[in-house]
Formats: sequence, structure tokens, C-alpha cells
Amino acid sequence: MDGYSIGVDLGGTNLRVAAVDEQGSLLHRISIAADYHHGPERVVEEIVQVIQQLCNPLSNRELHGVGIGVPGFIDMESGVILAASNLPGFTGFPVRDEIQNRLGTPIILENDANAASLGEMWMGAGRGVKDLILLTLGTGIGGGIISDGEILHGFLGMAGEIGHMTIYPDGNPCGCGNTGCLEKHASATAIATMGRSMDLGDNITAVQVYELAVAGDGRALLVFESVGKALGIALANLVNLFNFPLYLLSGGPLPAWDYFAPSMFAEIDKRSYTCKRTGTRIERALLGSEAGLFGAAYLPLQRALYSEASAIISRY
Amino acid sequence: MDGYSIGVDLGGTNLRVAAVDEQGSLLHRISIAADYHHGPERVVEEIVQVIQQLCNPLSNRELHGVGIGVPGFIDMESGVILAASNLPGFTGFPVRDEIQNRLGTPIILENDANAASLGEMWMGAGRGVKDLILLTLGTGIGGGIISDGEILHGFLGMAGEIGHMTIYPDGNPCGCGNTGCLEKHASATAIATMGRSMDLGDNITAVQVYELAVAGDGRALLVFESVGKALGIALANLVNLFNFPLYLLSGGPLPAWDYFAPSMFAEIDKRSYTCKRTGTRIERALLGSEAGLFGAAYLPLQRALYSEASAIISRY
Repeated sequence: MDGYSIGVDLGGTNLRVAAVDEQGSLLHRISIAADYHHGPERVVEEIVQVIQQLCNPLSNRELHGVGIGVPGFIDMESGVILAASNLPGFTGFPVRDEIQNRLGTPIILENDANAASLGEMWMGAGRGVKDLILLTLGTGIGGGIISDGEILHGFLGMAGEIGHMTIYPDGNPCGCGNTGCLEKHASATAIATMGRSMDLGDNITAVQVYELAVAGDGRALLVFESVGKALGIALANLVNLFNFPLYLLSGGPLPAWDYFAPSMFAEIDKRSYTCKRTGTRIERALLGSEAGLFGAAYLPLQRALYSEASAIISRY
Repeated sequence: MDGYSIGVDLGGTNLRVAAVDEQGSLLHRISIAADYHHGPERVVEEIVQVIQQLCNPLSNRELHGVGIGVPGFIDMESGVILAASNLPGFTGFPVRDEIQNRLGTPIILENDANAASLGEMWMGAGRGVKDLILLTLGTGIGGGIISDGEILHGFLGMAGEIGHMTIYPDGNPCGCGNTGCLEKHASATAIATMGRSMDLGDNITAVQVYELAVAGDGRALLVFESVGKALGIALANLVNLFNFPLYLLSGGPLPAWDYFAPSMFAEIDKRSYTCKRTGTRIERALLGSEAGLFGAAYLPLQRALYSEASAIISRY
């Protein structure tokens, strides 16, 4: 076989599209600024054009399909976006069918954090592992759970909401209605908020808190100690529940690993006797923002493999 | 087919063995007092004798195998019990092979809470559902996670340690080394401990706290409100992580449902927007202590089904 697939990352600011072969080699990629203000029809038109531009020089290969990572909730059956706060106008829009009809090739939608987890499994820090969990630290905290090589969706595609795990029952209020969600104590946004409450500056950003930590600022170091503690509580819970061999962290705050990792591991050691006694790995993800693109491209390849397997069964 | 299998529940006080047919009908059962003081060899001898006693009148049927629910950690590959605090002398003992060699039929070991989850899926509150989580409230809190019809084991068979989920980071100390484990705030043991700290009696039991609640005692009612809150935090985390359609509670404190359920649901509503917006069910398990026995009996049946399926694939 000499096939390939297309991965699309429908980000809040950029639309990234890549052609990837079955071995995970990047054949070609295009990245353009995303403009959602003219409605989803225009975005769909742009996606279709970029995909065609990528596919044209590859006409001698078999296209397995297109995977699209979307920052929001997706109804997996209908291919409709149920909620995506960063994609104005997309809620309720039948993205999958619109693109599928124009391209005439199978389209698979997936939540972007789920796609990133799959990407790390396929070509990143999870190569050779079939069970892993990825936490993406950003404005919020996204997550993806890969069980036996496949994304754990739950019955409505809403599994993996790790950012909304309660870690401090009386903790910081979250937009979801809860208090003490992980993402209110360990996301990039939370780092900036903690920096402000530590009087590090009224408009301080997460990056600036990091720079202060690098410079040895005690309060900035405390912020990352607190982030590590929050992550450690969440990770210990995940280890106790899943007993997976690998947990990965990714996202903007990753360069601060040395500042948050010690308190994170101390917390995990205390709160998970499973982890202490086994070779559980908690590590940095490798692909950064590329993970979602690779994961999206892997979706049609994975489906092709599975349908090949089930065709064998049904032919018997 | 006219087959059956044997389920064994290796409890701390009772050894229960049942013959169950493929439709889940109980054919025959035997329950004897368990005596672990003469070493595991003697227990194995007893198990083998009871199984033979059950099998003799069923010689016209096909025996699929024997499933054994064990209150402890099991090395799934070797069939050795790694840790089981209620089964003195069993740690490191090759239970599976010892029984298998004597009976000449396949033996499958499983953690008892996992077996109970499978039992509820097969013949209890989870009939027709393939994804569910069971929490068993007892001395501690055990749990089993069923994903796509199968027990989630993790890479070392230690998944589903729901009782050791941290719900209050600075909460009650637990024997595992952590503070604030769910089981220190919502098990039967925790109910008794809270009853004592509420001055309900120096030696008060969980059952007596329940009886006081029934009689309208305000402090006993507060104990169950607190139990409900702890369970609610844990369940909201599970819903956010798994997005499964069904979560079941079982165990001694279940009759107090009306006293802990209101605060439990209030907490879940607050802490899981997934739950609020969907038809997620949180309900009482149906089989009580029978769940483990049915689940143990289902293990060989499930394996028979799977090996039939994979035989089809490999014959192709």
C-alpha cells in the first residue's frame, strides 16, 4: 500500500492541514490564518480548497480520508459540532457532511485533545504504548484518554474532561459551575491568575511568571509549586483509576517542568500507592501543537485498519 | 449449546460457589464458612471439592470453566495473588494453577470488585449496558470499571481503585499513605468513624448510625449528608472522565440511599456539567453480594465467546 491521509487542525487562530503517509511521515503541510467571522460556510470552503491543494500532487497515492480535530464537543454519529466556544457560528453546523459532500472522501471529526492524544501515541512520546492519557495545559486543560489503542469517547463523546476534575472541593470557581476544577489551578490561565494574586504584576502573563521563576523569584516559584501540586492530585487520581503505563503533559507551561515537576511527583507518590510500586511513567509529550495534526491524520488510517479487520470477520 | 460455568467468591468469611448457565440462571450453589488458618493448600482443597460436588450432577452439560473473585490484587498473567489482606497466606500463592491442575478445567482469577461489576452488567442493574462503573461501599470502597463490555484492568490489573481517589486533599488519613481518600469519607467504616466523632456512641457501628438516621437523629443525618457529598465529588469526577451512561452503588450503606442521595446528586450536578446535560444514570446496584458470584461465573463464558470470535479470525 502506498496511501496517505489528511489531518486538519481547526484551531482558534490557525487552520493547519497536513498530508501524512501510513508511516507517519509528513508529506506536505499548509497553515493559514483562520477567519471565522464570515461564517462556517466560508471556513468549509477554505478547508476544502487547502485539502485539494495538498492532494493534487499526490494523485498517484490512495487517500484514506480526512481527520479533523475540533476544539469542542462533537456528536460523533451526526458529525455535528455541539459546542465550540472558539469557533463562532459552528454550533449545530454539519461540518462533516458539508466537507464530505464536496470532497467525496470520508471525513472523521474528533475533539482536538483526543486527536492530540492519538497523535502522541502514534508518532510521539507514546510510541509503542496502547494505553495513555494526555493532559494539555493551555487556556484550560484538555485531555484525551487512549485505551487499547483507541480514544475513549464515552456514550456522548464527552469523556476525558480532565480539566474539570475536582481537585480542591472549595477551590477556585470555574465557568462550568464547579469550584476547584483542575484547570482553575494548573492551566496557563491559572498560572497568570496566581501570578497576579502573588502581586507579580496586574497584567502578568503565564510566560512572564515563568521568566520570573527562571530568574529565581520566590513567589513565581511558589506559583509553579502550586501548579505541580494540583497536577499531582489529578494525576494520582488518574493512575488509581486507570493503571495505565503512561501519562503525558503538553502545552505552553511545559518549559516550566523543572519548577512544577518536583511537587507534582511528591503529590503523586503520596496519593497513589499504585504508582509508587510500579513503573508508571509521567512524562512530557513530544509533539507539541503538532500532536493534534498527526492524530487527526491517524484517524482515517486507524479506521481503514479496523474496517479491514472487520471485513475479514464478516466475510467468514 | 447447553453449557454452564462455575463462579467462586473467595470472601473473607465465606466461600461461595455457584453453577450458572449461559443465560445467567443459577443451577445450584453451595456456601461454606471459609477457614484460612490452615493455609492456602487446604482452602484450595475445599474449593476443588465444592466445585466437584456442584459439577457431578451436571455431567450432561459442557463446563466452560471456573471464575474466581478474589479480594486483592492479582497478577493476571501468572494467576498469582499479589496482595490480599483478608486472605492470610495467599500472597504469592499460585491459586490459579493449583486449582487448574486438580480440576483440569480453565480457571480465571479476577479482583472481586471487578467481578461484581461484570455481574451487575450481565444480570443486574447494568443489563443492556456495556459501559459502567460500580462502587462497592464496605470496610473500604472497591470499584470496577467496565468499558465496552470488558473489565478495565490497566497494565498491572490495578485499575479501578476508586476508593483511593483523593476527594479532600487535606482530608482523613488513609492506610495507603494518602489523605482524603474517598473510602475514608464514604465507606461503612467512615460512617461509623463519623458517628463516633459526632458523639453518637464510642462503639457505634454504621448500621446503628443508619438506625439513628431513620429515627430522625440530626447528627446521624449529617453523617449521611457528608457521605453523599463525598460520593458526589467522586462520581462527578468519574462522569467527567468516562462519560459512561451508568454508575452503580452497592454495599452495606445502600439502605441509607434516601439519606445520602440528595447531597450526592447536588454535588454531582454542581461538579459535572456533562452529567447535567445528559441522561447519565447513577443508581443502586441490584445483585448485592451475589454480583461477585455472577460476575465470576461470567468470566469463563465471556472468554469462551471471545475465543470463538478470535478463532473465526485466525481460521480465515
